[in-house]
Amino acid sequence: MKEVHAEVITIGDEILFGQITDTNTQWLGSELSLLGIKVTRKSSVGDRYEEIQTILNEAAQRADLVILTGGLGPTNDDITKKVLADFLGQSLIRNEEVLSDVTAFFVSRGREVSDVNKGQALIPEGAVALRNQYGTAPGTWVIREQVVFISLPGVPHEMKGIMRDHGLPAIKKHFQTPFILHQIIRTAGIGESMLAEQIKDWEEALPAFLSLAYLPSFSSVKLRLTGMHDDQQLLKQEMDRQVQLLLPLIGNKHFYAATDINLEEHIGILLKATGQTLSLAESCTGGYLQHLITSVPGSSAYFKGGIVSYSNDIKEQELHVPKTLLEQKGAVSTKVAEAMATGILRKYKTSYALSITGIAGPDGGTKDKPVGFVCMAFASATGQLYSKTFQFGKERDTNIKVSASVALNLLRLGIEGKL
Amino acid sequence: MKEVHAEVITIGDEILFGQITDTNTQWLGSELSLLGIKVTRKSSVGDRYEEIQTILNEAAQRADLVILTGGLGPTNDDITKKVLADFLGQSLIRNEEVLSDVTAFFVSRGREVSDVNKGQALIPEGAVALRNQYGTAPGTWVIREQVVFISLPGVPHEMKGIMRDHGLPAIKKHFQTPFILHQIIRTAGIGESMLAEQIKDWEEALPAFLSLAYLPSFSSVKLRLTGMHDDQQLLKQEMDRQVQLLLPLIGNKHFYAATDINLEEHIGILLKATGQTLSLAESCTGGYLQHLITSVPGSSAYFKGGIVSYSNDIKEQELHVPKTLLEQKGAVSTKVAEAMATGILRKYKTSYALSITGIAGPDGGTKDKPVGFVCMAFASATGQLYSKTFQFGKERDTNIKVSASVALNLLRLGIEGKL
Repeated sequence: MKEVHAEVITIGDEILFGQITDTNTQWLGSELSLLGIKVTRKSSVGDRYEEIQTILNEAAQRADLVILTGGLGPTNDDITKKVLADFLGQSLIRNEEVLSDVTAFFVSRGREVSDVNKGQALIPEGAVALRNQYGTAPGTWVIREQVVFISLPGVPHEMKGIMRDHGLPAIKKHFQTPFILHQIIRTAGIGESMLAEQIKDWEEALPAFLSLAYLPSFSSVKLRLTGMHDDQQLLKQEMDRQVQLLLPLIGNKHFYAATDINLEEHIGILLKATGQTLSLAESCTGGYLQHLITSVPGSSAYFKGGIVSYSNDIKEQELHVPKTLLEQKGAVSTKVAEAMATGILRKYKTSYALSITGIAGPDGGTKDKPVGFVCMAFASATGQLYSKTFQFGKERDTNIKVSASVALNLLRLGIEGKL
Repeated sequence: MKEVHAEVITIGDEILFGQITDTNTQWLGSELSLLGIKVTRKSSVGDRYEEIQTILNEAAQRADLVILTGGLGPTNDDITKKVLADFLGQSLIRNEEVLSDVTAFFVSRGREVSDVNKGQALIPEGAVALRNQYGTAPGTWVIREQVVFISLPGVPHEMKGIMRDHGLPAIKKHFQTPFILHQIIRTAGIGESMLAEQIKDWEEALPAFLSLAYLPSFSSVKLRLTGMHDDQQLLKQEMDRQVQLLLPLIGNKHFYAATDINLEEHIGILLKATGQTLSLAESCTGGYLQHLITSVPGSSAYFKGGIVSYSNDIKEQELHVPKTLLEQKGAVSTKVAEAMATGILRKYKTSYALSITGIAGPDGGTKDKPVGFVCMAFASATGQLYSKTFQFGKERDTNIKVSASVALNLLRLGIEGKL
């Protein structure tokens, strides 16, 4: 099977000048990878005719598939369409389907369709419109000298919607991409290099049609095993066999799911399945752990609530942490973390509770307890009480995020009975 | 003054395949803009010799400044250095300063310096090392046929550190960039298009050496007025004059700071200055508002804490929201929001309190109160009580973030006495 090479071109000064974050190219790179298509170059150019024309000509020489995003809006700045039409040697003609989409879009919002808006229905002659259910600018698909050109609006949710609805299926069909399988293995509590060391022999022995990617985030590493083969059955069997070999090497303490779910979703599934509930008491993470837990749709089924006890008063008054403990051990100590977890567990009457207290920084560190020193405790209604101390880094924002991520894994281990 | 054109080249398959988010190019684009240097193209290529060589040759034809990031680590994948040396027609030689940096880095961590690590000290002959205080791979600065080439490691905090310490000052000096002034105007509670409409006449009348950028985020628009002129005094005077004309057009309700601080920082400054305190009661935002407030270093001086009352039990038990109110008005109502704000204010004994209750989605919406329906209340120890209802969108994550952002502005207006 021939390798398909793609280039992604982003158009817009606001990206070049760093005024907005470009999330489109990452998404496209990832989606094309999942189809077995290799992105070999990404480029960003400004909103100027010559710049777009130049990059189009360059990419056409190198790639099988060229995807352009941005520069399709109704205003004069947005000229991708004109450049593309000239590049194809075509004129812009009105597409009736798109016109009816644009009209419907405005009518449903009780607004008039201006001439400027009607201009959105112009696409290069010979191009196929990729209709946009999420906004007004359509995408287009056109082939010139065996190279496929797709142009898309730059607004991320419109771009993604059009690609999911029309672009990706058309690419799959046109390039007859090989049969591809992906298997996600989610791990937590183990770093990338240690995990790599632990599974090194297995990885080296993988057959050539299987490849492994490490996708790390704060305290969790996602593994993605990708297989490409013409024989679907053989591929499926070999993938399954390799996963069965892999899991014992990772071990049950670090492996938590063979589907692409994060720790907060996994915890939600565990709690929902058994009808158990959760409460949280946070100090240095200031609500971020509760934010992660409640970012899961339906989390109100198991998360009753929690407290951010930023001051010692609140730790005493609301979580019943003894004043003597705060004075003797300090607010950042395993004993206080344990009292916080027990306090919220009893008060909110939940199956499980977790607490975090620490020094996020940049100030507040001491010699004994420097910035990044964090204590956590896990408590259960059955009487289990576990606490642990961590030393993270110096940056406030990272400390908050790493602490919350580590806490999720502690919570997972506690609920799974692995602490 | 001649325009300086820059290109940024990112090297690494993990960026092309969408495995990691590239934040480097946005940061570089923004920093170069602030120096008056225009980024005219950004490119990403893979870790292959030929690809890097090709893009280097292309960029050298077009730009005055070429910045490469990535591909400088100690392993074999990272080959930027070799390509760059060959491109310059130089060999790699050992830089003693860098070697002592690398050695010190490992010694301070109690680790041996391996030969692979020592290899980090190799840089192209004739290049200037941009020393790295944050890791082991140095940057380099070299000029070839009047084009400046800077290569930097890909790890964001190392790349930024090296640029701040050495790269940006050297660029400023070498290109004798013109005198540039930036003035930030922070606004909240007004959308980009409405703001643009309101200040349109002023913007159109700006002299050619001043330009305005709109930098919008959730419910806040940052304006950046940039001026470039050889006459520093004239520029300063005209900038000040224009800002004085602009502020009344925005109005005190939407303008909150003429420095680059976000709402949570601004609220922190207001509270610290008057020794006042804050508590928060969140339902649908699940702790995200408390996370924003506590993301500010030193927030423990004014934020006592708060409650995430996800279940009605907790609203009743902890915030003393009357059961009859929950039954008659529903948990998402201005009356319940008011009771939550009053409840937390009294319990946590703070100067101000704010509450949020709403339907984040995707489930839980009704005909009267669809997904995105959110109520907020502001309460003060002096007896003020203000509540408001909002209708946001359909996406859970966006609803959480927009709600928190709008709540921060409500809090700001309350503290400033503008509600």
